Amino acid sequence: MNGSMMAAEIKEQPAVLDRILSEGRAGVLDVARAVRARRPRFVLFVARGTSDHAALYAKYLVETRLALPAGLASPSTMTVYDARPDLRDVLVLAVSQSGASPDIVEPVARARAGGAVTVAITNAPDSPLAATAEFHLDVLAGPERAVAATKTYTAELLTLFLFVEALAGRNGDEAGALPQRAAALLEREEEVARLAVRYRFAEQLVVTARGYNYPSAREAALKLMETSYVVAHAFSGADLLHGPMAMIDRGFPVIVIAPEGQGSLALKPVVERLGDLGADTLVVGDPTLVSLGRVGFALNDLGPEWLTPILVILPLQQLAWHLARERGSDPDRPRGLRKVTETW
Amino acid sequence: MNGSMMAAEIKEQPAVLDRILSEGRAGVLDVARAVRARRPRFVLFVARGTSDHAALYAKYLVETRLALPAGLASPSTMTVYDARPDLRDVLVLAVSQSGASPDIVEPVARARAGGAVTVAITNAPDSPLAATAEFHLDVLAGPERAVAATKTYTAELLTLFLFVEALAGRNGDEAGALPQRAAALLEREEEVARLAVRYRFAEQLVVTARGYNYPSAREAALKLMETSYVVAHAFSGADLLHGPMAMIDRGFPVIVIAPEGQGSLALKPVVERLGDLGADTLVVGDPTLVSLGRVGFALNDLGPEWLTPILVILPLQQLAWHLARERGSDPDRPRGLRKVTETW
Repeated sequence: MNGSMMAAEIKEQPAVLDRILSEGRAGVLDVARAVRARRPRFVLFVARGTSDHAALYAKYLVETRLALPAGLASPSTMTVYDARPDLRDVLVLAVSQSGASPDIVEPVARARAGGAVTVAITNAPDSPLAATAEFHLDVLAGPERAVAATKTYTAELLTLFLFVEALAGRNGDEAGALPQRAAALLEREEEVARLAVRYRFAEQLVVTARGYNYPSAREAALKLMETSYVVAHAFSGADLLHGPMAMIDRGFPVIVIAPEGQGSLALKPVVERLGDLGADTLVVGDPTLVSLGRVGFALNDLGPEWLTPILVILPLQQLAWHLARERGSDPDRPRGLRKVTETW
Repeated sequence: MNGSMMAAEIKEQPAVLDRILSEGRAGVLDVARAVRARRPRFVLFVARGTSDHAALYAKYLVETRLALPAGLASPSTMTVYDARPDLRDVLVLAVSQSGASPDIVEPVARARAGGAVTVAITNAPDSPLAATAEFHLDVLAGPERAVAATKTYTAELLTLFLFVEALAGRNGDEAGALPQRAAALLEREEEVARLAVRYRFAEQLVVTARGYNYPSAREAALKLMETSYVVAHAFSGADLLHGPMAMIDRGFPVIVIAPEGQGSLALKPVVERLGDLGADTLVVGDPTLVSLGRVGFALNDLGPEWLTPILVILPLQQLAWHLARERGSDPDRPRGLRKVTETW
């Protein structure tokens, strides 16, 4: 069946999360201990594509829960412009499922030579990236064969969460409920399938979120572009108000990702504004915001807000899969894409 | 006339650039001297909207020409999640034309309290942001009345360039030719007006670039969204290959911004790929790439690549203006937007 690989990999996620918690945690703690001893003062992430969204999530964690300044590196400054920044006291975290993209490997090699502590987070312990960084964390997702990444994304998120918590001297126990919560969410697939039909003829879509879940909006938009070829555009709720709101008119489809928390409180004025404009708003999240949208997918009891990105992406992966099938494309083999993207 | 304010502000840019070079430079050097003495080791930018694109340009400059690691702060970590990162040895650069948006002012206040050296770059010396930061640089653009920022954007770019160069101990003299080059470019408006007609009925558009001009792609897309309500989506050339390329099919409109340089070399495979897919590609830049697109706007003699973002945006501002007029909207007053966006 078209899409059977991606469908199977979406379903594997509770088991992968469980594996990280049971088998991966010791390795995460070891690396965190070694990195803490080096006392990094700034954190830089190097990533592209789906892994860039995992890095963005971790950047929020570093800023809020580790209280260190952080940035996303622009890989091209090293690969295209030959920059050689002074990276002493900098922790460089490179995230890549394949560990094979040259524009991730090269900046990490340079960062290590430039004095940084380097950690690679991959699903490929034998990859060039794992060999290049000083430390490696395996996200233990097992082989991913569909081109659109799903289980490696949530595996990266959880591994990054446990790692940042360990750097902050915490054990990450609050992640223990994730596998069960993920399994419960995935059981709501029929609801998602009904929502997907709505977008059968949508040519474009905006996805918005705030804070910890801004990466979820970016990742949901990317899945929709990759598998359904809908032009999906992600904005943080704040940036949406700075300009792009002008293009939203009556009936424009907008997906708001807003599980309960500070992020959903900050999104309330955005959802109200979208309502005033007559946008066709699907709210995935906080039941009180769901009531303000045209359609909704209410989420309850997802746990602390900083863990919700690991859960809320699941119905959106299913949405991308069902929409691709509705549109007659093969979610496993998006046109024009390869699994490993070799850019410089 | 609809759009007369924005049109006038676009035309003012050579004079504004000249004013920064003649009247602004001394202030930039003074602040740079004081900041250098504090020996910052990491640079964090705080900005939103158009100013965020200016910050992204400066981030490339900091990484390549000052050789320091840099990041774009996520304002919400401080305003929504109450993060209090350790910012000793960090230079925080806040960029905002109005200096009035609370979600920029608040993180700067916290950064200053948290030990950072703080510099505000605004077009409003009497603004809350200018008062909050330890240092202030005035971009000297004069009052900007159109909602879509134009002259404050290029003024921010040039001020940031001179400031980063001064931090690196250079005098920025290579910027001297910018006012004349900008004036020459703006004279090609009729060519731009003819290109704008092409997009009269386009519902969506992708804008792509690489390296120093990735911010130009983001800013061009934002101008198009704000004034013409076309759904314009910016990607770095590398990210475009990581997934979104799947949504590009025959006839899909793509604008490639690629003035001669390392960035245009890195974009060549992207333009070729777009050609294979039958995309409707407009190349703005390098004459050798122009020949690979469907239509082109060739740019010659723009000077060093790191200064081209200050120039290449000019025809794209004109494109947004002409397209808005073709579509019957008022470029001065985009629906649903205000000049100062108050987000938290």
